[in-house]
Amino acid sequence: MLQLVLNYLGIAVFASSGAMVAIRKGFDLFGIAALGVMTGVGGGVVRDIFLNVSPPTSIQHWPNVTVALAATAVATLTARLFIRMRRIVLSLDAVGMGFFATSGAAIAVDHGASWFAAVLIGMTTAIGGGIIRDVLAREVPLLLGPDDLYAVPAMLGATTYAVIDYSGPQWVGLVVGTVLATLLRVAGLRFGWHLPTGPADLIARGDA
Amino acid sequence: MLQLVLNYLGIAVFASSGAMVAIRKGFDLFGIAALGVMTGVGGGVVRDIFLNVSPPTSIQHWPNVTVALAATAVATLTARLFIRMRRIVLSLDAVGMGFFATSGAAIAVDHGASWFAAVLIGMTTAIGGGIIRDVLAREVPLLLGPDDLYAVPAMLGATTYAVIDYSGPQWVGLVVGTVLATLLRVAGLRFGWHLPTGPADLIARGDA
Amino acid sequence: MLQLVLNYLGIAVFASSGAMVAIRKGFDLFGIAALGVMTGVGGGVVRDIFLNVSPPTSIQHWPNVTVALAATAVATLTARLFIRMRRIVLSLDAVGMGFFATSGAAIAVDHGASWFAAVLIGMTTAIGGGIIRDVLAREVPLLLGPDDLYAVPAMLGATTYAVIDYSGPQWVGLVVGTVLATLLRVAGLRFGWHLPTGPADLIARGDA
Repeated sequence: MLQLVLNYLGIAVFASSGAMVAIRKGFDLFGIAALGVMTGVGGGVVRDIFLNVSPPTSIQHWPNVTVALAATAVATLTARLFIRMRRIVLSLDAVGMGFFATSGAAIAVDHGASWFAAVLIGMTTAIGGGIIRDVLAREVPLLLGPDDLYAVPAMLGATTYAVIDYSGPQWVGLVVGTVLATLLRVAGLRFGWHLPTGPADLIARGDA
Repeated sequence: MLQLVLNYLGIAVFASSGAMVAIRKGFDLFGIAALGVMTGVGGGVVRDIFLNVSPPTSIQHWPNVTVALAATAVATLTARLFIRMRRIVLSLDAVGMGFFATSGAAIAVDHGASWFAAVLIGMTTAIGGGIIRDVLAREVPLLLGPDDLYAVPAMLGATTYAVIDYSGPQWVGLVVGTVLATLLRVAGLRFGWHLPTGPADLIARGDA
Repeated sequence: MLQLVLNYLGIAVFASSGAMVAIRKGFDLFGIAALGVMTGVGGGVVRDIFLNVSPPTSIQHWPNVTVALAATAVATLTARLFIRMRRIVLSLDAVGMGFFATSGAAIAVDHGASWFAAVLIGMTTAIGGGIIRDVLAREVPLLLGPDDLYAVPAMLGATTYAVIDYSGPQWVGLVVGTVLATLLRVAGLRFGWHLPTGPADLIARGDA
């Protein structure tokens, strides 16, 4: 039950972020809905392609896309309010990211993936939607840039799940992984943590 | 038989549109051929990945890629003429889009996809090639922008197929879905229909 | 044994090229590692998705990603040296490309792909990582532009493999295909061979 709530929460927040980017880019209502849906369910669809789940769950069953569409509609109608609530949205996004990373790892293990694959696929589930969003909006993926920690918490969550699943019950891995990933993400935002870039003098100017 | 003709027509028109974008971007002959082929068969390849058809039909069997290559060659050799015949090309493209949307939905149903999935996969078959084209050419996907109706007719065609397939014979769904999608697309072009964007003041300037 | 060496060599050189682009774009250490890994193993992952290998080999087994990560770390630490050794890097890259094209074709045949599919999938294995790199870094894929021959040698290698495999032993196809693709690529670089673009007056200025 909690799992369903977290799943829909994650999809809704991710979809809203896609909708906001689409609005800023001047997309039409279809473009807003499409970018919202692809951001919301994209990570899970990539996960399912890696795991040979066919058709991907979010495509075969209507609830995920419907939640993403509803979130997109709400975000579009309340766009100004949405922008002002940035802090709350980022916190909800952190919870969704943490849950997607660990649940993605869990689904991978259930489909016979190795522990190594579970970590990679969990991380992909969490960050895939955001990467698809930025590629389609013709932006350099935020996740790869120097702004803040996003993929590292996702990797932590997926790794935590894989380690706990090796010796303990699945639900403990899901809870601990989700909580740790969320906390690291929120702490990173709060304290402005970020990773260094490569040698600064090799960065091309006016090119990003 | 008519299905084969429509399939090759759709691939040829889509491939030509990819070739024209590649020429405008200054790609070399390989780049023109590659973008043409990926635009022509890309939607079907994505459909096959969703449906676990392996290797994807257009990759396993030579006719689709060959038709795309031939269309690319013709479009490149007659580029100026091609640009002047814009209206005819757009009409043929509308027929191809309509057929891809409905036949994509039909293939999805044949592979055990739900009705919901058939609609999404049909739409993806019709618009996937164009999205791949624009991402590779580093343009914001035309389909998501405010210009004209493209994905909405595709969704109408796929939905029409799914509804008719529920109660009637497959070929009726294919014909009616293709015709409706094509008509809506042509009418949208003719009368300049388009969907609204989000709040105009939230659109970032000089950013698209 | 030689096959393993060539595989890791190819992944390492491809990953380094991804890391160098990421450094130039100002990505953070995660972004550098991620772009390196995706460039190094991306072609093989796309190949496995086409062939329904699930999860893709590079995701399921740790060595490929580990080699890519190590190469990314070395490239980042020696970035200035790396740039100065451009000629050596390009030669190693040519070998990796040649091997990926032919081994990709061989793996495709082993999984029941047609000869036609083997050529396309071999070429995709060789060029997929570079295309993913450029799309994520928001650059027009180098491979499609007019700079030098890259995909054509890959196609030659994959085709050579497919032709030889039809009548002779697999290892002969692998060796001859890899050598021919590498030689054509190196000769193209050495003598500045490149393919023509489309009609020059149709190329949009300041748009690439």
